[in-house]
Formats: sequence, C-alpha cells, structure tokens
Amino acid sequence: MTPGTIHGVGLGPGAQDLMSVRSDRLVRGARHVAYFRKAGRPGQARKIVDGMLRADVIEFAMEYPVTTEIPVSDPRYNDCLSAFYEACIDHLATLAHTGEDVVVLCEGDPFFYGSFMHLYTRLQTIAPVAVVPGITGMSGAWTASGAPITWGDDVLTVLMGTLPEEDLVRRIRDTDALVVMKIGRHLAKLRRAVAAAGRESEAWLVEYAAMADQRVTRLCEADAITPYFSILLIHGQGRRP
Amino acid sequence: MTPGTIHGVGLGPGAQDLMSVRSDRLVRGARHVAYFRKAGRPGQARKIVDGMLRADVIEFAMEYPVTTEIPVSDPRYNDCLSAFYEACIDHLATLAHTGEDVVVLCEGDPFFYGSFMHLYTRLQTIAPVAVVPGITGMSGAWTASGAPITWGDDVLTVLMGTLPEEDLVRRIRDTDALVVMKIGRHLAKLRRAVAAAGRESEAWLVEYAAMADQRVTRLCEADAITPYFSILLIHGQGRRP
Ligand SMILES: C[S@@+](CC[C@H](N)C(=O)[O-])C[C@H]1O[C@@H](n2cnc3c(N)ncnc32)[C@H](O)[C@@H]1O
Ligand SMILES: C[S@@+](CC[C@H](N)C(=O)[O-])C[C@H]1O[C@@H](n2cnc3c(N)ncnc32)[C@H](O)[C@@H]1O
Repeated sequence: MTPGTIHGVGLGPGAQDLMSVRSDRLVRGARHVAYFRKAGRPGQARKIVDGMLRADVIEFAMEYPVTTEIPVSDPRYNDCLSAFYEACIDHLATLAHTGEDVVVLCEGDPFFYGSFMHLYTRLQTIAPVAVVPGITGMSGAWTASGAPITWGDDVLTVLMGTLPEEDLVRRIRDTDALVVMKIGRHLAKLRRAVAAAGRESEAWLVEYAAMADQRVTRLCEADAITPYFSILLIHGQGRRP
Repeated sequence: MTPGTIHGVGLGPGAQDLMSVRSDRLVRGARHVAYFRKAGRPGQARKIVDGMLRADVIEFAMEYPVTTEIPVSDPRYNDCLSAFYEACIDHLATLAHTGEDVVVLCEGDPFFYGSFMHLYTRLQTIAPVAVVPGITGMSGAWTASGAPITWGDDVLTVLMGTLPEEDLVRRIRDTDALVVMKIGRHLAKLRRAVAAAGRESEAWLVEYAAMADQRVTRLCEADAITPYFSILLIHGQGRRP
C-alpha cells in the first residue's frame, strides 16, 4: 500500500480567507486533522478552521505536556517535550503507514518559529511529509498597522521577546525595521529595551492580527499585559522616491 | 456616487494556489487590474494570475521608466520614479472616483519591500485603499529548501543584496538565521560577504521559489549569475527539544 502524506499546512494569521487556496482545499478535504493546543484550550489553529472540516473528520489534538511550569533551562523541559513529540509522530506515522493522509494545522507559516517543525524533522525519514507555506503572523500585523514594514534597502530584524534584555537593546538599536514575537509575559522587559534603544515613539503593538479582536496601539499607550498573539513593530523608513 | 477601492493584493511567491482565498476572489472578480512591469516584459505579478482574469477585464500595465540605467544615488532617479508613481495614482484614483474598484497585483506581500507601497502612501488621502497580505517570497524560499528557517529564540535578519559589502559582512556574522533578497547583480559581492563572515557552508540559494523553474543549490555550488527572483538563506539552528 502507498503510504499517506503528513501535510504541515500554514493557515495564515487568523482570518479564514487569508489561508491559501492550497491550504483551504487540504483542510476542507481532510479525513484526519491534527493540531497542537494547551490542555483545556480550543487551540488557535483549530479555531481558525471552525466550520471548514468534513462532517466525518477524525481529529487528533496534541496537547502540550508543559508550557510555562518548568523553566526552559531545566533539562526536564526538553525531555518532557521530546517525549511528547515522539508520541505525536508515532500516531501520525501510523496513520500514514495505513495509507491515510493527515493535515496538521499550523498558525501562520509552518517553518517560521512553528511547532510543526519539531514533528517535521522527526518524521522526515519515516513517512512522506509536505509543507504548505502560509501568511505569517507578522505580515498580518504590519497589514493591520496600515503601514509598510520595509522600504528600499531597510534591514529587518525579527526577535523573540524571550531574549535577554541586553540583547534586545543592542539589536533594537541596530536595525531599521523591527518585529518582536513571543511577547506575553516579557512585555515589561521589552518596553524597557525599546526605551533604552531610544525607539519608544516608533513602536507599535498589534494584538490578534487578522483575528476578531485585532487591536493596534502605540507601545507607549498599550496596556501592561498583552496576549500570546501579540507582535511589536517598528516600521522602516528607508528610501522612497 | 460611492468611490471604488484600490486593493493592493498579495499574490504570494508564485504558485497560483499559494494565493489567499481572499486574493483569489478579488483577482477573479476584478473588472480593473493593474500591475508593475519592466517595459517589454510580461511582468511576474501578471504572469502569476494567467488564466484567472475575467474575459472583460481591463488591464493597466504600469511600466517602470528606469530600473538600472540611472544609478540609485543620482537625484534624477528619484525624480523620474516619483513622476511615474504620480502618473500611476492619477489613473487609479480617477477609476476609483468613477466608482470602479481596482485590483493591483503584488508579488509576495504588498507591505514587504513591495512597489505597491509607493502607490499606497500617495493614495491614502485621495481614494479608499486596502491591502491583502500575501505569502512572502522568503516563505516560499525556505519551504522550497525543505528546512525550517527559525527555531526557539533564533534571531532572523533580512538584508538586501544592495547593501555595502562591509554592512553585509557584519550583519551576516551577527545573526542566527539569514534571508538576503534583491541579489541579482550583487551576487559576487554577497558571496564574498558570506565567506568573510565564515558562513559559506551554511548558505543556500533559492531561485524562483514556488515557480515552475524553482531551484535550490548550496551557495558554494551555485552559478556565477542568478535571476532577480533569488533569495539567499541561512537556516537558524536554535533550541529544539
Ligand atoms: C510560536 S510563534 C508561531 C509563528 C507562526 N508560525 C507565524 O508564522 O506567524 C507564536 C508567535 O507568533 C506571533 N503571532 C502569530 N500569529 C499572530 C497574530 N495573528 N497576531 C499576533 N501575533 C501573532 C505571536 O508573537 C506569537 O507569540
Ligand atoms: C521588490 S522585492 C519584493 C518582495 C515581495 N513583496 C515579497 O513579499 O516577497 C523583490 C525580491 O523578492 C525576492 N523574491 C520574491 N519572490 C520570490 C520568489 N518566488 N523566489 C525567489 N525570490 C523571490 C527576490 O529576492 C527579489 O529580488
């Protein structure tokens, strides 16, 4: 029997019609759909496809065993996640080996800081696997902001809010355009870093880009807490005739 | 009469089915379609939508007056381009003011180093204008490369091949993951910069990502010339349980 394919499918930033035509077709046609979520949560990727799935779809929710309970630096964090990913790929590879295709739902673009990558690298040698790119959350964010992110030969730097404060300061100072992702509980640190780099007045916070609760605020007017789906932007000001 | 809207529509990296469902609908439904191209060339954006346009579509090809004939540093370069963009928006705004919607075809994502941005900023105060994000060329490129671009808290730097060699060297040395766009005739300089940064063995060249002629090669095995649609990648190697 020919094995099925495990498709990592980019869903884009949130709005259903920002999915690619290829992703839309794969999602609507899928007998097997898998997605990550925190225990007890619906999961953002699953929410994006609400109302699109086949009536006879079989869903496989991959629930993270840890998120913030164990510090990232603790070796148990890696062990725990690694065992989790192994269990996930066992299930997915078993489906593929019985000839079934599986669609793994991925927020944004699967290869850009995505969880699917942890399955992808493990699956590569044991089952057919394919990736459909998607519109990233950051594209959704700068579109929501109503202004282009980069002009001419602007340098764009993409940082994670999880980086040490001094790294953030140095890199925020040294770029034309800036995107910061994974902000959440790092917001206070990030604010200090943006201020230390002297760029507070240029910074925007975009929450839930391309989703129902989309919100764009100047960083200096933003609340003290921000959701997981938040992106900080500084727009480049490069050459423009 | 209510004015029409000028839509800057992201088409994604090249394959027709990597367009978003929203872009697909706008393109297929459009009475007026506009796009940039070099004089005498079909234009990549126009090529992507081949076979999708209405039979009664009215096309407006915006042909660049200069590209490489005048150096970017010459003030005539800016004057010439500026007059060109003004002429384009006159035509588009006139259509909008007679109640017609216009779809402007944009490669990749319109707000990411796109030509549409020059129309957008000029149109903002004179006609309704809207933007549909798209899958970027770089997402197409790393998907083509078959490996994730960024992991954990990797730093991603996006550079243009037009930058001075010493800037390229410094920034290529100082990043985890790298994307270089607008390579073309800057390939020899870029190669020297990647080598000077000690990262030649990590670098990949992706030509025509998600298009018919897609090609992925190690930089050290790449030809001495590369087309306009080329992206250099260095994949991040960050934390991965
Ligand atoms: C694990 S990364 C996944 C990124 C995703 N693969 C992409 O291509 O955008 C999660 C981070 O992406 C950002 N993000 C993704 N989509 C977003 C959206 N629609 N609005 C705001 N932030 C978003 C947030 O910063 C969030 O912390
Ligand atoms: C003026 S920029 C436009 C970028 C576009 N707005 C985007 O979102 O990708 C043109 C550059 O984008 C890159 N590019 C865009 N699409 C590409 C593709 N499909 N394959 C390779 N390079 C591409 C090339 O480096 C090219 O020189």
